[in-house]
Amino acid sequence: MPARGDHDARRRDVSEAVWRVLAARGFDGLTLRAVAAEMNASTGLLTHYFPTKRALVRHALDLAGERTGTRSRPAPPAPGLPALRTTLLDVLPRTAPAVELNRVWVSSWDAALGDPDLGDRERDRYERWRGELRAHLEKAVELGELPPDADVEDLAASAAAFTHGLVVQVLFDPDRFPPERQAALLDAFLGSLAHRPGRPEGTPRPITPT
Amino acid sequence: MPARGDHDARRRDVSEAVWRVLAARGFDGLTLRAVAAEMNASTGLLTHYFPTKRALVRHALDLAGERTGTRSRPAPPAPGLPALRTTLLDVLPRTAPAVELNRVWVSSWDAALGDPDLGDRERDRYERWRGELRAHLEKAVELGELPPDADVEDLAASAAAFTHGLVVQVLFDPDRFPPERQAALLDAFLGSLAHRPGRPEGTPRPITPT
Repeated sequence: MPARGDHDARRRDVSEAVWRVLAARGFDGLTLRAVAAEMNASTGLLTHYFPTKRALVRHALDLAGERTGTRSRPAPPAPGLPALRTTLLDVLPRTAPAVELNRVWVSSWDAALGDPDLGDRERDRYERWRGELRAHLEKAVELGELPPDADVEDLAASAAAFTHGLVVQVLFDPDRFPPERQAALLDAFLGSLAHRPGRPEGTPRPITPT
Repeated sequence: MPARGDHDARRRDVSEAVWRVLAARGFDGLTLRAVAAEMNASTGLLTHYFPTKRALVRHALDLAGERTGTRSRPAPPAPGLPALRTTLLDVLPRTAPAVELNRVWVSSWDAALGDPDLGDRERDRYERWRGELRAHLEKAVELGELPPDADVEDLAASAAAFTHGLVVQVLFDPDRFPPERQAALLDAFLGSLAHRPGRPEGTPRPITPT
């Protein structure tokens, strides 16, 4: 328990320590002991905040969500495809903070695949992200940047796939994928979006469970 | 130590138990205790095979590599883009064994991002895979399926990115991505490859450290 009544400040210290451990070692290295060592505290103090490893992992995921949500994001130069480009470029690990965030998210997939609740959270996070991409794609159709029958649902899934799959390759091989090559790969991908087959007339929309 | 001299059979039993734990719970759930429980053995027996958690993780990664390498793969219908399609379709989590293998690989990224040696192995594994894809792309150029100035290096990275990024979305949301939708998304992606910008004349090849 904190000696002074300054509970919130101590909470912030704990969160900062959790984040530093996470950024350096991923979820695999996130233990009460490592967080305690990071803040020169006892493991006993930490069990006060996190009675279980699971509670620690959940807090770490909340922190990652918070940092992702509140990071400063560049303003898109124009709606439609330029806005989509800005959004995806901002996700790619082209800066030290973006590398750190991506390492944390990719490393969280291990725990999320083994825990149904965390898996559901990740599923919903993906759907929110695809929704954001879809909005830009719908605008691009409206602006005539994409054909009127473009399947924005599929294009959003494809853009999310391309971007996250590139993230993983970059994290393991940054020398081979410097920031300018990441941008060039993204631009080539975006340039090809107008050349996808559209929705066949009269076919049902792809399955989108709620 | 095994009671009988049948060391190899016991080794196989251990490997089978490691794989079952891994497939069910990922690397996050892979502990000596879980493997011991899976084979009704003592944790003491397991420490004979795996003195450290790290040794257990390495063995698990070797198993994943072995299972990936030796799985039966469909014969490509024709060289070039059809062969590329067969290769990528085979990676996607469209069958129970492919879901299992992908869960294990995606879940291994946590440990690999936190351990330089494992990270190097994963980097090399990616480069071998891109090499396989590049060979199909070069054949596609030769056959006139792609323009002569196609940047096969970039296309291979892009195809690997698209495929693995789709894998992750499918693992978290299989209802939204049934096997036929995965194939349709892949086909739309492959169909767009011919519409990528080529290598500008006289420009150096992208950085490919050895």
